[in-house]
Amino acid sequence: MSNDPVTILGISGSLRRDSHNTELLHVAAAEAPADLSLVVADISGLPLYNWDLEQEGPDRYPEPVTSFRRQIEEADGVLFASPEYNWSMSGVLKNAIDWASRPETPLRAKPAAIVSGGGRFGGLRSQEDLRPVLRHFQMRVVETPEVIIPSVGGSFDEDGNFTNDRARDQIRRLMANLAALIP
Amino acid sequence: MSNDPVTILGISGSLRRDSHNTELLHVAAAEAPADLSLVVADISGLPLYNWDLEQEGPDRYPEPVTSFRRQIEEADGVLFASPEYNWSMSGVLKNAIDWASRPETPLRAKPAAIVSGGGRFGGLRSQEDLRPVLRHFQMRVVETPEVIIPSVGGSFDEDGNFTNDRARDQIRRLMANLAALIP
Amino acid sequence: MSNDPVTILGISGSLRRDSHNTELLHVAAAEAPADLSLVVADISGLPLYNWDLEQEGPDRYPEPVTSFRRQIEEADGVLFASPEYNWSMSGVLKNAIDWASRPETPLRAKPAAIVSGGGRFGGLRSQEDLRPVLRHFQMRVVETPEVIIPSVGGSFDEDGNFTNDRARDQIRRLMANLAALIP
Amino acid sequence: MSNDPVTILGISGSLRRDSHNTELLHVAAAEAPADLSLVVADISGLPLYNWDLEQEGPDRYPEPVTSFRRQIEEADGVLFASPEYNWSMSGVLKNAIDWASRPETPLRAKPAAIVSGGGRFGGLRSQEDLRPVLRHFQMRVVETPEVIIPSVGGSFDEDGNFTNDRARDQIRRLMANLAALIP
Repeated sequence: MSNDPVTILGISGSLRRDSHNTELLHVAAAEAPADLSLVVADISGLPLYNWDLEQEGPDRYPEPVTSFRRQIEEADGVLFASPEYNWSMSGVLKNAIDWASRPETPLRAKPAAIVSGGGRFGGLRSQEDLRPVLRHFQMRVVETPEVIIPSVGGSFDEDGNFTNDRARDQIRRLMANLAALIP
Repeated sequence: MSNDPVTILGISGSLRRDSHNTELLHVAAAEAPADLSLVVADISGLPLYNWDLEQEGPDRYPEPVTSFRRQIEEADGVLFASPEYNWSMSGVLKNAIDWASRPETPLRAKPAAIVSGGGRFGGLRSQEDLRPVLRHFQMRVVETPEVIIPSVGGSFDEDGNFTNDRARDQIRRLMANLAALIP
Repeated sequence: MSNDPVTILGISGSLRRDSHNTELLHVAAAEAPADLSLVVADISGLPLYNWDLEQEGPDRYPEPVTSFRRQIEEADGVLFASPEYNWSMSGVLKNAIDWASRPETPLRAKPAAIVSGGGRFGGLRSQEDLRPVLRHFQMRVVETPEVIIPSVGGSFDEDGNFTNDRARDQIRRLMANLAALIP
Repeated sequence: MSNDPVTILGISGSLRRDSHNTELLHVAAAEAPADLSLVVADISGLPLYNWDLEQEGPDRYPEPVTSFRRQIEEADGVLFASPEYNWSMSGVLKNAIDWASRPETPLRAKPAAIVSGGGRFGGLRSQEDLRPVLRHFQMRVVETPEVIIPSVGGSFDEDGNFTNDRARDQIRRLMANLAALIP
């Protein structure tokens, strides 16, 4: 890495205000190497993906799409928080990715990492859904450790502090591995 | 099956006006047993799923959500048209399913079938993403034939007629198998 | 179900003498409805699958293959114990299934259920590998509950007794659901 | 890459004498950069994986296991030919991988690529089964192009020459990408 500050765009698949998955993005930022800063994308204003809109040209995209795509372009890497809804990636996350995908994708070949939490298997199935998508974009994805936190609510105390030290250590290694992928 | 007319709700993962996947729903309706009628859900007005909205109670859901859920309840079965976007289920389809899922899902234990088309592998990956979701709802899903049509555009002539006889035969068997699951 | 005794063939993907996954087959037998008896297949003598051997005709199959296929034919249903090796189904289990698959498969349309244990996610990935295979054979597979037991060793006491009551309840429901699929 | 010759170990999931998948390994060798040589592993003599054998220590492994593991160690990269049997990776291939996996795996962090052919979708499902396994070993896997050849028999002429130019071009790029991963 150069000495320039490194910007990671965080994208959470949950729009819930107190989402544990979104919170994991902030935990990851706190555990990341010092010169790495995290910006969390606001994808709540994206419309549903429609190819017809795309045909009017990327310069005619709805403004939230344009902003989101620009944030990806400007980032050095992407950190996905991928909750599992119904044994699968959330529609909210996939919709954002679909908008980012065409006609050309600013995600191409970017470094990426994934965190997820919740439920019986902590988002394993969601991550397994997401990985082929990132592979399709030839993103360079941190493979290990897998940050998958079952029953993630129990990892936060009443004041919202993250208290799961085993997961914290995994997240720290994940972020170091992500930083190492950034030229 | 009784002699009552049977209603199938068609749900397409593409909002594109001339979507081949949406068109496959109509092909399926034409090939279905005579007493089966198809209604295509309009999911273009659904907001992005947000658990916070759910907490205000299902009776406070946005109107498009309420209508969509009622359509599912009233249907005897569901036919999904599941295009593949970026080696995965479309965000649009998953978002609709996420709204249908909680707190209780009208999809539970309903008969279902899937069609998809497009791209190099015709939506295979999209169907493999979708099947565990339907299993999660304990839907009774037609397993064979797999209706997966690569390069689906070539299956329609200039006037929009479906001309792929091999796929038509598969669709006919799919719909017969779907009808057989309806009590 | 008729009053005839029902025979389930247990197939374990682990050849280890003290395999917890094989042991789960016996736990399942103990928790099954009273008229159901379990036979555990011995797949340790199967050769590696080779299509050339198949070409000599099913009547020329090696004897362990013929016996295994006959056991499947005679069973009313199949219970798979599917350990996870390297984030995937065991080669031992898949090899047995490959021998059972061709030219015609005695597995076709049989009722089936799956148990698995071990590791961080209890065999979830192994089950997700196995399900499409069973779907390919149009087996009627019990979908829920998912019997997936992380760190399965802790579910047995020093004398080998199964002491995990939550999992036991799941197994009991699984076996009741399997029995219900048998005509 | 240094100027030293580079050795790739080819591992085919089919034991069939005239296997098209094994043949794809040789096509890949012919299309690879000039300083790359391919050795095809003979996995037909491997026993079925059994953890109990492992407990006697890797130095007590059956000879075919020891030889196979040594071949992996000595190779600079691995090329898998992964046929699809019953909508899944072949048991033969997974069994070989299971032997290579423990207690330590010579596969760890090695460069790897995958080819497959056959059937309606050319082995797509087999590759999707295999990729998480390689990820588990932190192998560096060529992600694109995907070399997946439906109805692969039609890609060879009567004399066994490979005549599918589109696939040949993909294989050439795959091998160039594999070579680029080798230090």
